[in-house]
Amino acid sequence: MSDLIQKLQWRYAAKKMNPAKAVPQDKLDRILESIRLTATSSGLQPYEVLVVTNAEIREKIKAIGWNQAQITEGSHLLVFAAWDNYTADRINTMFDLTNEVRGFKNEGWENYRNMLLNLYPARDAEVNFQHAARQAYIGLGTALIAAAEEQVDATPMEGFDPDKLDEILDLRAQGLRSVVILPLGYREEDKDWLVNLKKVRRTKENFIREIK
Amino acid sequence: MSDLIQKLQWRYAAKKMNPAKAVPQDKLDRILESIRLTATSSGLQPYEVLVVTNAEIREKIKAIGWNQAQITEGSHLLVFAAWDNYTADRINTMFDLTNEVRGFKNEGWENYRNMLLNLYPARDAEVNFQHAARQAYIGLGTALIAAAEEQVDATPMEGFDPDKLDEILDLRAQGLRSVVILPLGYREEDKDWLVNLKKVRRTKENFIREIK
Repeated sequence: MSDLIQKLQWRYAAKKMNPAKAVPQDKLDRILESIRLTATSSGLQPYEVLVVTNAEIREKIKAIGWNQAQITEGSHLLVFAAWDNYTADRINTMFDLTNEVRGFKNEGWENYRNMLLNLYPARDAEVNFQHAARQAYIGLGTALIAAAEEQVDATPMEGFDPDKLDEILDLRAQGLRSVVILPLGYREEDKDWLVNLKKVRRTKENFIREIK
Repeated sequence: MSDLIQKLQWRYAAKKMNPAKAVPQDKLDRILESIRLTATSSGLQPYEVLVVTNAEIREKIKAIGWNQAQITEGSHLLVFAAWDNYTADRINTMFDLTNEVRGFKNEGWENYRNMLLNLYPARDAEVNFQHAARQAYIGLGTALIAAAEEQVDATPMEGFDPDKLDEILDLRAQGLRSVVILPLGYREEDKDWLVNLKKVRRTKENFIREIK
């Protein structure tokens, strides 16, 4: 069994977190750094991660998040907020940054930039947002593993009103739309109905198919 | 630096793979098992992973995949294919499996099943497919880390014609739609223009925001 498989077996979506136990800063930093480093389509990183610790704001989010207790019981709430659209500015910013960091311009890379500039901004904003949102889910998958490595619990949540969350965090004015949220904290074992139940997954035969 | 951060630093989207070097079965199995174990919304696992090794089929996929060479240079091509819709059958199958594995029915869990049965099948198929596709991206993010742990290269690709890929693999008849593909193989260092270039990511300040 690999390290990763052990981490994936350890983790689960904690249903009850201990409000008295906070995730230390160094663990949080490594989780965030893992999200920052993971892949996105064309390297555009078309989303931001908001780390909400403010108690009042988290109470408001809980109220539009089916009252899920982990939103305030955890010590940190990550909000994955995707770009509402791909614009020429946003694309150029990433390509310019790449040239700056690498210290040179590359013809193939510039052709690729122009291809994206011709393709993305002309598409419907909703298509672009959906594409950006998918990239945020690569970050989410990465965050779950990063948290497990730190033995921190993390409960991914789609059960909230995204329009209302956008309002609470004023995301639309910043060209962002909330996609998924992730409370981080520590399981409270004796109060969590899920903690001792078996993880259930489809069998390999029902999930993976070989085309030889 | 955590193990995970080291793996994320090691990996990149290899542009040239060595066609003479195949990923061993045990490594492939651990990568696939990691995908199977990772999280999905409500545990529905609304996608399948196809492992294409057939040379002729991969040639056809390359032809509708911008002729990206890694599709045939890698030893295995993973195709993430999401459910085209959420149906009552598909939802019930996962809830029934959960009850079977855990050996009991739980009222809260049954209420949750009914909530999903009332919500998902009534929605537009496209909305459901988009939701399922996002879950596949959690699997993609997991696969990239799993491959890095095995020191296997993996190049995520969205640059292909999904309708044509669906045709090649006859996915629509099985209620599936292709979402993203992932060649697995080994970088050919001396022929890969990207291998020695710096990984570029937005700074922490431009990607992560604290709301205190």
